[in-house]
Amino acid sequence: MKSQITNALADFFFEYETPRQVLVRNSKVGVVCRLIQLGVVAYIIGWVFIYEKGYQSTDTAVSSVFTKMKGVGYTSVNGYERIWDVADYVFPPQGDSSFVVMTNYIVTEGQTLGKCPELKGKNNCSSDADCEGGNLKRTGHGQMTGVCVNTTKTCEVLAWCPVEDDTIIPDPPLLMSAENYTLFIKNSITFPLFDVTRSNLVDGIDAAYINKCYHDPKDDPLCPIFRLGDIVRLSGFDFETIARVGGAIGIVVDWTCNFDVAVKHCIPKYNFHGLYGNPEEKDKTKASVGYNFRYARHYFEDKVQKRTLLKVFGIRLDIIVQSLARKFDIIPTLMAIGSGVGIFGVATVVCDLMLLYLLPKREFYKNMKFKHTDSHVPDPDSEAGSVETEASKK
Amino acid sequence: MKSQITNALADFFFEYETPRQVLVRNSKVGVVCRLIQLGVVAYIIGWVFIYEKGYQSTDTAVSSVFTKMKGVGYTSVNGYERIWDVADYVFPPQGDSSFVVMTNYIVTEGQTLGKCPELKGKNNCSSDADCEGGNLKRTGHGQMTGVCVNTTKTCEVLAWCPVEDDTIIPDPPLLMSAENYTLFIKNSITFPLFDVTRSNLVDGIDAAYINKCYHDPKDDPLCPIFRLGDIVRLSGFDFETIARVGGAIGIVVDWTCNFDVAVKHCIPKYNFHGLYGNPEEKDKTKASVGYNFRYARHYFEDKVQKRTLLKVFGIRLDIIVQSLARKFDIIPTLMAIGSGVGIFGVATVVCDLMLLYLLPKREFYKNMKFKHTDSHVPDPDSEAGSVETEASKK
Amino acid sequence: MKSQITNALADFFFEYETPRQVLVRNSKVGVVCRLIQLGVVAYIIGWVFIYEKGYQSTDTAVSSVFTKMKGVGYTSVNGYERIWDVADYVFPPQGDSSFVVMTNYIVTEGQTLGKCPELKGKNNCSSDADCEGGNLKRTGHGQMTGVCVNTTKTCEVLAWCPVEDDTIIPDPPLLMSAENYTLFIKNSITFPLFDVTRSNLVDGIDAAYINKCYHDPKDDPLCPIFRLGDIVRLSGFDFETIARVGGAIGIVVDWTCNFDVAVKHCIPKYNFHGLYGNPEEKDKTKASVGYNFRYARHYFEDKVQKRTLLKVFGIRLDIIVQSLARKFDIIPTLMAIGSGVGIFGVATVVCDLMLLYLLPKREFYKNMKFKHTDSHVPDPDSEAGSVETEASKK
Repeated sequence: MKSQITNALADFFFEYETPRQVLVRNSKVGVVCRLIQLGVVAYIIGWVFIYEKGYQSTDTAVSSVFTKMKGVGYTSVNGYERIWDVADYVFPPQGDSSFVVMTNYIVTEGQTLGKCPELKGKNNCSSDADCEGGNLKRTGHGQMTGVCVNTTKTCEVLAWCPVEDDTIIPDPPLLMSAENYTLFIKNSITFPLFDVTRSNLVDGIDAAYINKCYHDPKDDPLCPIFRLGDIVRLSGFDFETIARVGGAIGIVVDWTCNFDVAVKHCIPKYNFHGLYGNPEEKDKTKASVGYNFRYARHYFEDKVQKRTLLKVFGIRLDIIVQSLARKFDIIPTLMAIGSGVGIFGVATVVCDLMLLYLLPKREFYKNMKFKHTDSHVPDPDSEAGSVETEASKK
Repeated sequence: MKSQITNALADFFFEYETPRQVLVRNSKVGVVCRLIQLGVVAYIIGWVFIYEKGYQSTDTAVSSVFTKMKGVGYTSVNGYERIWDVADYVFPPQGDSSFVVMTNYIVTEGQTLGKCPELKGKNNCSSDADCEGGNLKRTGHGQMTGVCVNTTKTCEVLAWCPVEDDTIIPDPPLLMSAENYTLFIKNSITFPLFDVTRSNLVDGIDAAYINKCYHDPKDDPLCPIFRLGDIVRLSGFDFETIARVGGAIGIVVDWTCNFDVAVKHCIPKYNFHGLYGNPEEKDKTKASVGYNFRYARHYFEDKVQKRTLLKVFGIRLDIIVQSLARKFDIIPTLMAIGSGVGIFGVATVVCDLMLLYLLPKREFYKNMKFKHTDSHVPDPDSEAGSVETEASKK
Repeated sequence: MKSQITNALADFFFEYETPRQVLVRNSKVGVVCRLIQLGVVAYIIGWVFIYEKGYQSTDTAVSSVFTKMKGVGYTSVNGYERIWDVADYVFPPQGDSSFVVMTNYIVTEGQTLGKCPELKGKNNCSSDADCEGGNLKRTGHGQMTGVCVNTTKTCEVLAWCPVEDDTIIPDPPLLMSAENYTLFIKNSITFPLFDVTRSNLVDGIDAAYINKCYHDPKDDPLCPIFRLGDIVRLSGFDFETIARVGGAIGIVVDWTCNFDVAVKHCIPKYNFHGLYGNPEEKDKTKASVGYNFRYARHYFEDKVQKRTLLKVFGIRLDIIVQSLARKFDIIPTLMAIGSGVGIFGVATVVCDLMLLYLLPKREFYKNMKFKHTDSHVPDPDSEAGSVETEASKK
């Protein structure tokens, strides 16, 4: 029994089976098949390995973004001069990766809760019957009291009064000085699979450099300080237009890293692109352009609750971190090789079909390739064998 | 030397090797193996290619979301009428993809910094010894002064006074009118791999349509205006319940696109689902239901700093963009084919095992299939050959 | 015609082709090849299947995070005692997954719009000529009026006056009590591919447990209540340092789930890591450490608009949800097997090269393996066959 197992093991280890093959000496099929096979090899090496880097595994990063605006704005409306600093024009204030820089606004000061008519031209009425008391219109400013005000021919509403009049957007935008604001982006990313952490303040970007540099795609591609005007220009917008009605810009921080080379080559690229479109470029019938929101500051005056309503037009900046790191890994390499060998098999199948069904001598090749187990068909081996044996006897 | 290389090249290009095979004419093994092979082919074509679309490469999008609520709320508490507009009930105001719509609140007006007892029933004490002076309780409202107030039998604290009493949540919720608020979602996505940018304001969605439409899963599946009541209903909540204690709802904008067909078929689908659960449906012992946060408005009254504290119950809406685009790509196609040929090889191995170890005539087939290099075993070829040669001579 | 198709079908189904193989009985090549083949099998089973779980498909989750801070802070500056509660120290208030807890601040109270000199030492001037009127300096506080103020030797600006003096950061930080604040994280995730929804309030985490537990990596790894001091310590920071100048900490909620076992084993792991670095540990020349932002509260006093400016130093907490679920799937399994068979083919190629080009008896093996279709080369089969036939005749 034991010797049986030993024998089986010996047989298993000392024997090696290799497929028997016919060497077909035919220039047509030879050239075609070799070209197909070379093509497959070229595809596997050139495309899968070199172009698509199929020998590497990939990972995306966990990232963290902190932003800080700097700069001061100045407005002079009806002789009233005002200064706008970061605490005034950035929403929200805490340095999120998505925030809005106010560039234009419509201010409605001293609103109190009370009754007043809607704006002229909106929510029109000819008599009290048109203003159903207690009703709330979605596009209105408050609850209708059931009264039609004669002077404006609009329904009276219980609302924050006076109601906001946003028909005229200041042009040019009030905060054109926003063009000179600067944005500082701090971005750190971690690739958990490769255990690498990088910051956009890469080697060579020190405090001295940051204090004087401005980002420029050609000259200072790694400077993390961006002029707002540059951002708008690089994303294809016209500053005055976007400042007037608002817009959204995506700043893509692109980390495409290859960790088969030194980590120091893993540096960010900054791209800028408009997110909702420029009103000048788009089809006029398009539903929604610009970017604005309403924001209220509440206060008490003589024990009466009041508020200042701001309709803020601004540039919304979304810092989007895109990351893709690659590193040599044995699994995808072998997967790619394995698939490649499989595709190689496809080439063999194609050539065999050609050999067995297309060539004039196909019957001869069939006989060479196949041996039949039933005696209805004469065995090709022994037949060819005997012929050639005779030939070799000559 | 040169002619040697030429010869080797000629040999390489004009010769083609193809494996020699035995054609086993046995209905049992034939049928079984053909079925296995057909199964593998059916699996590769049907499942990998047609069902899982293995011939396509995939990409996820970079997306940008902007939201805008519309609508006016009305409350009447103790005869005090109030209007709530967007600037009052949306947190944060700037149209983020994640925001809260206030539907209920507990207001504590005119808080000042000072000393007052804790609420009855919380932080109880029987004597000053129970209230360690200078200590801050995590669940308390301020720093204990070391005094036990007789009237309430609770510790006195240095805090914003009077302390908030949130034991009674207004029922029905104060802002039931929130049901009629509308949400406008503007979403643009970019698939960087395929260089396609799409907006949820697809072709045919123009300003005129948006002004009158409301989203409806059946009739207006592409309208980007959503009634808050519909959102709540479609996510399986009861509006009054969620409005009272708050809750969180995810609005999934699903972009599943196939770029092998025209890009215009790449349109979003909107799904709604509750995120933290409805208190009515869940196990009562579950730790945390509802959604609320505290928010303060600071002001000065007679040079004294005061604040209005709002405990806001609301519906938190998270706009979640899910995207998956597919397009024909040669790499995954060949990977799938390559793997398929590999699996085909597995089928051959299974059939060979059957042929060589299970069939009654297995010794015969073994002899047909294998040729031995050592002379201990008679050569099957010549043997079978001679038998068949004789047979063919008949 | 019909019988032809029937015959072809019969041929197709009743015939099975299997490659003919040479069994090479050579201990050297046998052992080497068997070891290579065993190595490939071991790799496929051990690495691809067991270690990398190649038989499973993977999915990442859609997640939703809600946070809530608790705790009260106390400051006493120049004898002025103040209490800070959640509504005062959390930015933004609504429980986002990314927020800031204020731990230190520089307050500038009662700013009004007006003219005042810049801080001593910044924006220096010796005469009015140094202060270009109407100009806005990026690092300045306002618009220069063109006047050089003698007392401070700095330019006068139109700004919120008095300008903020942030040269001295309070040390120790004013809100050291922040160490005892607690953070509650509510996180629910959905794996769309596997249709599984999980919450971090897993089974056994009920209201009673939450009311008394604090997260501890060893003793209470599933408790969703975190002491801020613990978070800072676990992320490797020193609390007093980070509280003074601010910093950012990522809380990674890691859901690595295997749905081939019971879903109840799918539980979160919490990891903490610093995001922008500790100023003490980093190179002093590094550009930017700490975390701060400015925040203003506007109010009216005697009809004059004023504001309180806060420079907030704080700990920014980013809750990052990482998720990876795995489940058995037939596609990746067969892909892995297919690739494995392909790699097996590579092993055969390597062994064949050895057999045909390295072994001393390579010519013999070549003759065994290959049959030529042209008569220039004697047919190995018939030759060997006749030899062996003779041998077998003995």
